[in-house]
Amino acid sequence: MNLAVSKPALIGIDWGTSSLRAFLIGAGGEVLDHISKPLGIMQIKDGDFERSFNDLVGPWQQAIDLPIIASGMITSRNGWVETPYVSVPSGVQQLADALVTHKTSDGTTITFVTGMTADHNGVPDVMRGEETQIIGASGLGMSNGIFVMPGTHSKWITVSCDQIVDYSTYMTGEVFAALSKHTILATLMEYAPFKEDAFRKGCAVGLAEGSNFLHDLFGVRSLPLFGKITGTMVKDYLSGLLIGAEVKGADVAQIKGPVTIIGRDDLADRYEIALSIAGLKTNRAPDDIVARGHFMVAQAAGLIS
Amino acid sequence: MNLAVSKPALIGIDWGTSSLRAFLIGAGGEVLDHISKPLGIMQIKDGDFERSFNDLVGPWQQAIDLPIIASGMITSRNGWVETPYVSVPSGVQQLADALVTHKTSDGTTITFVTGMTADHNGVPDVMRGEETQIIGASGLGMSNGIFVMPGTHSKWITVSCDQIVDYSTYMTGEVFAALSKHTILATLMEYAPFKEDAFRKGCAVGLAEGSNFLHDLFGVRSLPLFGKITGTMVKDYLSGLLIGAEVKGADVAQIKGPVTIIGRDDLADRYEIALSIAGLKTNRAPDDIVARGHFMVAQAAGLIS
Repeated sequence: MNLAVSKPALIGIDWGTSSLRAFLIGAGGEVLDHISKPLGIMQIKDGDFERSFNDLVGPWQQAIDLPIIASGMITSRNGWVETPYVSVPSGVQQLADALVTHKTSDGTTITFVTGMTADHNGVPDVMRGEETQIIGASGLGMSNGIFVMPGTHSKWITVSCDQIVDYSTYMTGEVFAALSKHTILATLMEYAPFKEDAFRKGCAVGLAEGSNFLHDLFGVRSLPLFGKITGTMVKDYLSGLLIGAEVKGADVAQIKGPVTIIGRDDLADRYEIALSIAGLKTNRAPDDIVARGHFMVAQAAGLIS
Repeated sequence: MNLAVSKPALIGIDWGTSSLRAFLIGAGGEVLDHISKPLGIMQIKDGDFERSFNDLVGPWQQAIDLPIIASGMITSRNGWVETPYVSVPSGVQQLADALVTHKTSDGTTITFVTGMTADHNGVPDVMRGEETQIIGASGLGMSNGIFVMPGTHSKWITVSCDQIVDYSTYMTGEVFAALSKHTILATLMEYAPFKEDAFRKGCAVGLAEGSNFLHDLFGVRSLPLFGKITGTMVKDYLSGLLIGAEVKGADVAQIKGPVTIIGRDDLADRYEIALSIAGLKTNRAPDDIVARGHFMVAQAAGLIS
């Protein structure tokens, strides 16, 4: 292990819909310091991103003048500077070639990593921020394989030879929230800590051959009506049904080798169970892969030596 | 055509979640008079069903003492009298044998048609009211085939030799409402009259081999983002995606012969389009099949001669 700490070389910012993470990155790519705030682009008053940027990252920037690279929903239509997408297949060099620079009113230059798009039968898919995490993961030895990033809009990403070759988005988290709050299912749910047995039951139904989500959903209503699951199991049965249906859609039969899960531990635990029911091994990506991605893109663009 | 009007012989009540329909039925099974009110079981104050019953049906009942038969969610846990279910396969005789009687405080007897249940791999399915409509349709010459009853909880029902042999529920209408009001998709929808081209596009995606609802849903977000559909097309694209996914789940490849659609004309139009894209012919059931069902069950039970 190399305990020598290098000098700060780069500031990386992962600015998403609901949170902001900033990293002070050393010349060897290691994270020297970091900030995490619940200041996503939807929480910034009057779209004054520059002010939030100065408040949060200014102290690092004033101490030493560093290149700054930012990724995430900050480059979307509702963000600071809207940037075009690069298309799959793309890797670190394509992202480096497509950087968009912006000067703040005090002359600081911010370099934005743009998002990545895919197309399936004429229907586009979009991501902003996840591509930088995946590039970071590929730099940490995961240069081939399937990655899943669970969440409001889950992403399934295929990486081959350091390139993101394809991906698909699933609205699993958002559908769970809407159904569990705004349908008859809401009246059936009793709060309880995670019930793994209920989650597994739901998963098995969602993953089954011939399953159909709109029909299976009615089971979330009928099973407690018949006393086959308790009120405290409803929430996790629904969660399992949704995640099972997502995993089934990701065509797990085609997947060879483990799936790498990137995300919050509580969600990663659920995906690990669902993938194990589907017969797949999993592993988890290290923290701060996005900072590694910032470092790699900055290097490829010549922003740092 | 027989223009002779027979004497009143039966009062039939179809009392659902959001509306009540009552029929004065003649000795030949024809509807002599009817009432329709937005007084479903969820709209009855303090669960005082008897009062609503007396207000609405009392005038008929006072003029001439008739047997009364009622079906629908009125027999559910949130209704007037909770009744058990009969199981598929069942027909008119099984429903007649399972009638549940209730005496009101003034001594009037009401006979409830109970609901019907099915089981698919241990997950129960339930309906209350639809079984009586289907029995009525079978009495009107539709004694074999597939029926679809679109709505909040759509039903697909298989009838063979006058028996309901199986059915499945799809939460299509309720999922549409939750997604179109309580997700990011809400912000993309601009009001417009029905756009058939948008509906057809969505249908085609929902019906496609390898479609996955949770993934396809993200297209409802990305297509307008890329200008591939307009804001005024979003609502009907989503509607098409959902109905297409439902029709696909109903395993249309197995269906021979036309599908009979039972429901509101605007919804029936959508299902007719979706089924035609799936290569299936459709027809529509006549109005008031539920009154015919009440008449047939009452006859089979000996309530009327």
